[in-house]
Amino acid sequence: MRQVFHDELEQVATDLVSLAELVAAAIRQSTRALLEADVQLADQVIAQDQAIDLRRNDLDARSVDLLARQSPVASDLRTVVASMRMSGDLERMGDLARHVAQVVRLRYPEHAVPEELRATFERMGAIAEQIVGQVGGVITSQSLEEAAAIEQVDDELDTLHREMFTVLAEGAWQHGTTSAVDVALLSRYYERFGDHAVTVARRVGFLVTGEAGAIELPEEHERD
Amino acid sequence: MRQVFHDELEQVATDLVSLAELVAAAIRQSTRALLEADVQLADQVIAQDQAIDLRRNDLDARSVDLLARQSPVASDLRTVVASMRMSGDLERMGDLARHVAQVVRLRYPEHAVPEELRATFERMGAIAEQIVGQVGGVITSQSLEEAAAIEQVDDELDTLHREMFTVLAEGAWQHGTTSAVDVALLSRYYERFGDHAVTVARRVGFLVTGEAGAIELPEEHERD
Repeated sequence: MRQVFHDELEQVATDLVSLAELVAAAIRQSTRALLEADVQLADQVIAQDQAIDLRRNDLDARSVDLLARQSPVASDLRTVVASMRMSGDLERMGDLARHVAQVVRLRYPEHAVPEELRATFERMGAIAEQIVGQVGGVITSQSLEEAAAIEQVDDELDTLHREMFTVLAEGAWQHGTTSAVDVALLSRYYERFGDHAVTVARRVGFLVTGEAGAIELPEEHERD
Repeated sequence: MRQVFHDELEQVATDLVSLAELVAAAIRQSTRALLEADVQLADQVIAQDQAIDLRRNDLDARSVDLLARQSPVASDLRTVVASMRMSGDLERMGDLARHVAQVVRLRYPEHAVPEELRATFERMGAIAEQIVGQVGGVITSQSLEEAAAIEQVDDELDTLHREMFTVLAEGAWQHGTTSAVDVALLSRYYERFGDHAVTVARRVGFLVTGEAGAIELPEEHERD
């Protein structure tokens, strides 16, 4: 019975990793859609977000089923509960990719982002995609070093986000208010990818260290 | 044993309602801080958000404890899981109130919002506070009518949010880009209060109707 249970737990972890891969693809595609004002690709991201939601629902339903059938306690229970929370973070990252795509669609055929900022958004997109990959890795490895590395990568996203607001400051900005609002919201979406990744990393960290906080929400990781 | 369990479940519901009350107070205070550029009040909201986080952590720890000790199944299990998700939505609404307060702090001693928009933000704040009150009500009553009413109230928030972007459009806006970005982000925060309220209402709805979806995430409720 325990073996079956642990096989099922492992399957949940595998499915979380595959959810992270779907989200990484959504981030990559929404960023490319943003940089190239590619409305077809944007529409694809918007449509695929439903698939991410369904996967997450399915994963959570199986976790609840696991709770009902196996009544796990202690660290097994914490793992199941933490998995349900991680799936929530990943699903929310999928929403953020959809938000990026929706801005692309709204401004098409115009570019949502002025040319001189595209390199910055390209960098933010690359970091966001990388960090979701790291999230998948840490769910499998349960490595505290890898979890800590995610926080460092997130710092770069935060720095780019802060710099964006300097660019948007009075006087410097020459592209009108609609574009300023788009850029501010887009930058915030990318920064939030990092926040969710850090939240997942901390959940893994708490699980590994076995602290009581493992099933609690880690300190809110947001600075905006 | 069942009686003890149901008493404990009832206590969780009571605590959710009291969490909703804390969040309603945070929304009221952050809105007043915004309208009056009151930095002391803003600091108070920022400090109190930690109390909301701690309450939520405590509530969730007790829910996990309930799962471990009682191993509930079927609708009881769904109720516990749904409660943990609702506490997450309420905690996130507390974060949003803190975000509003942080914008107040950032712009102090200036007003973050131009005078002609203050009435709109006052209205958004009033609706947001009201809707959290309704969330508390529906958790207790489990009334489908009340849950449906929350969606209607949210529609007004969405309308105000959309109108804000018209105000921010090229040509019409005379207050510079920093202010445009502040207004856009603030308006989004208020709109998100409504989204989270609707999510909680749907979770209650699913619980009452007993559909399999009760423990799944309802369709993403966002239109931005």
